[in-house]
Amino acid sequence: MQRFGKVAILGVGLIGGSLAAALRSSGRIDEIVGWTPGDDARIALERGFLDQVAGSAQLAVKRADVIVIAVPVGEVRGLLGRVASSIGKDCILTDCGSTKASIIGAARETLGPHFPRFVPGHPIAGSERSGPNAADPGLFRGRRWLLGSTPETSVRACDAVRSLLEPTGAVVEQIAPDLHDRLFAEVSHWPHAVAFALSAAIAGGEFGEAALLQSGAGLRDTTRIGASSPQLWADILLDNREACLESAARFRASLERIEAALADADREGLVDVFARGARWRTQIG
Amino acid sequence: MQRFGKVAILGVGLIGGSLAAALRSSGRIDEIVGWTPGDDARIALERGFLDQVAGSAQLAVKRADVIVIAVPVGEVRGLLGRVASSIGKDCILTDCGSTKASIIGAARETLGPHFPRFVPGHPIAGSERSGPNAADPGLFRGRRWLLGSTPETSVRACDAVRSLLEPTGAVVEQIAPDLHDRLFAEVSHWPHAVAFALSAAIAGGEFGEAALLQSGAGLRDTTRIGASSPQLWADILLDNREACLESAARFRASLERIEAALADADREGLVDVFARGARWRTQIG
Repeated sequence: MQRFGKVAILGVGLIGGSLAAALRSSGRIDEIVGWTPGDDARIALERGFLDQVAGSAQLAVKRADVIVIAVPVGEVRGLLGRVASSIGKDCILTDCGSTKASIIGAARETLGPHFPRFVPGHPIAGSERSGPNAADPGLFRGRRWLLGSTPETSVRACDAVRSLLEPTGAVVEQIAPDLHDRLFAEVSHWPHAVAFALSAAIAGGEFGEAALLQSGAGLRDTTRIGASSPQLWADILLDNREACLESAARFRASLERIEAALADADREGLVDVFARGARWRTQIG
Repeated sequence: MQRFGKVAILGVGLIGGSLAAALRSSGRIDEIVGWTPGDDARIALERGFLDQVAGSAQLAVKRADVIVIAVPVGEVRGLLGRVASSIGKDCILTDCGSTKASIIGAARETLGPHFPRFVPGHPIAGSERSGPNAADPGLFRGRRWLLGSTPETSVRACDAVRSLLEPTGAVVEQIAPDLHDRLFAEVSHWPHAVAFALSAAIAGGEFGEAALLQSGAGLRDTTRIGASSPQLWADILLDNREACLESAARFRASLERIEAALADADREGLVDVFARGARWRTQIG
């Protein structure tokens, strides 16, 4: 059971805050230092998830043994650029972003000699909620935490990140970054766009107000992730644009078949698309 | 507290079975008789929800004080036509269909002198599950049960149906049938089509198999009602076609704005649609 000296968590919202909380209660870390723009780090400190709040990202990473990047995807590149010169020569880095190719590209460009110690990561534990008030040390228990690697990535760094994550209770799995991005466009990024689109359509329709009161469990579930952060998800989709556009085109084709069958009162055509969806969905249980 | 002699429930799946169970445990009904094509009535009998299973719909409604139609929307018209001549002269009728205008039209055409005693109803308690095995006497507790009326509907019939529904724990509310259909196209019928479309698109894409394993809570919720019965929902959408096509057009417009913004890497455009959706959805909580 590996111990760690100083762990710096940059971004202590839902994911970073939950990780900090899980690590702190494990007792395997000497010092957990958080940094984030805004009030999140102070809240995480007050909730007992951190030992210290650093005054800047550069101060947070100084003498850190591990750096965890848990800021929104759109802020990762800028943050890596700002801290690169303050990173120690043995320090291990990982991130929690929902896209991998663009973050790996940013890390390769900004981290220089530290890049082989950067292990791309993605905990599958998001929520429409965000911020340290939603954080929970049990958030990752039984969930998958995907780790990628590049031709340069060091095995020692991968092993250290695996070991760091043990106390979270997450199931750590390997995935190739390009496969990751295409898969998550399909199972997460584009479905968020669909939930936002349905929510926006209802909001702008004649029943925007009434639907708030009349929504049943079906609508609430279908649109739940449409309550997610618009900025965060815009950046994720833009970061994984090509794969998301492919998922979008497939979805549009299904939708057009449904709309055409409905317009033509073609029951067989409608049942055909619905049944292909239902056969797949019932397998999830 | 009104008592009822014989209540006939035609269709004892999720809704009819749950209603039968709630009514039977209330002790306010002398005799609950069920009928349904297939095995559902036998299962409901074995689960203790019914006093008797009738050999035909006509036998079920003979001497009934109340008839509850709880078959799928696509089967209501045919069923009403078959039982109309067996209905007693004071018998009250209600239904549980997700659309109202077409069912009211069918009732007006088939019920003749009984039509003023037909009270259109819609319990807001669906599920992607179906059949009497999913039935539950507590299904309606705290849920809304909407009742409509027509110019011909008798007040006594409305009051009797309200009284019948008391033991279910449902909150009974009035709604105009045409408003009902446009509202439910928006908050239920078209969202089902969206969930089916997303499920079908993923099923037919390169990650159909992988997505079954890799789905997170977000995808599971967004597609949950895509596991519903394809035939049942095809009939509901066809029955409420005009309103559903209007909801579909609004949804398509939101979607096209998202896809165009993504293709153009227009972050502001993407955030704009997402934020309109999120503002609405966060109000549901």
